[in-house]
Amino acid sequence: MPHIPLPDHLPGITGLLEYRLDTAAPIRTLTQLLLRGESTLTEGERELIAALVSSRNCTNFCNAAHTKAADLLLGEAETARAVKDDIETAPVSEKLKALLQIAALTQQSGRAVSPEAVERARVAGATDREIHDTVLIAALFCLYNKYVDGLATVTPTDPAYYQTLGDRITGRGYVRPPGGYPTPAK
Amino acid sequence: MPHIPLPDHLPGITGLLEYRLDTAAPIRTLTQLLLRGESTLTEGERELIAALVSSRNCTNFCNAAHTKAADLLLGEAETARAVKDDIETAPVSEKLKALLQIAALTQQSGRAVSPEAVERARVAGATDREIHDTVLIAALFCLYNKYVDGLATVTPTDPAYYQTLGDRITGRGYVRPPGGYPTPAK
Repeated sequence: MPHIPLPDHLPGITGLLEYRLDTAAPIRTLTQLLLRGESTLTEGERELIAALVSSRNCTNFCNAAHTKAADLLLGEAETARAVKDDIETAPVSEKLKALLQIAALTQQSGRAVSPEAVERARVAGATDREIHDTVLIAALFCLYNKYVDGLATVTPTDPAYYQTLGDRITGRGYVRPPGGYPTPAK
Repeated sequence: MPHIPLPDHLPGITGLLEYRLDTAAPIRTLTQLLLRGESTLTEGERELIAALVSSRNCTNFCNAAHTKAADLLLGEAETARAVKDDIETAPVSEKLKALLQIAALTQQSGRAVSPEAVERARVAGATDREIHDTVLIAALFCLYNKYVDGLATVTPTDPAYYQTLGDRITGRGYVRPPGGYPTPAK
């Protein structure tokens, strides 16, 4: 049960983003810019960072949502699973491995991001902007994970929920649905 | 030395907020709403949450900046020091102690925020909105701390720097200075 009253039909982050619309707006804007804005990282790669960080924080709602988003964007479900299991053996480029390791270090602590981890990314071709965005995406998902778990929001167990959510965030992104979320039919 | 090139005269978060102005704007907006917007928590109480979380994350730049902001808002330097040392013996209300404990738990992990910690805050008179905002402020400062440390930004050691920064964020808040930050005279 959530620590504060939230609508039953809005689990996880969705109820929190309706709870305070004023603070939700910049959170949505920041997410849209980082995950869907112009970038040399693909949307799928950026969702992999979100899924990895959420998995490391054990935030099941965000992990399921962004894993589904990555799966839909990549067209297969193997890569996200493999990345969360072991970055080094996952079927991704050396550059993305290095960036995912930076994200994983950021999840532990900002102070854990070593010059060696950054150098590895650079040698593999990562740009300053890609390194910057990786750290900021990881930090943003730590915010989300702490927000979602810190208020004990509900995590649906039905895979169909994440299919619908994944379709929404890959199709329309992180902007608020016009008029908010519909109340489900009784 | 920062992991990406940042201007020497903009240490800590200040250089990062100029590095990507588009992502900085919603981060600033969210901070202004949470720390300076309408609330039943005083600005000083909210800066104490920011200082406590930054201290627990060992992010020296943010710890120094928000401790100074709290000191300026409270008119003394004892409370912030005491809160960071031991919440339970600090000279603050039972309600604020309970909220600060929720912030400290959120810093550890969202999953650490227990029903008992929330119940303690409620018994002490905390509202849903205060509990919500405490978790979100703590989560936001985890974002800041990971961003600032994850890119290895510079932390000034001169107390005068934080006096100037504290004056700015207590006087004008978290909005961007018109035209950005001035380049210092050579």
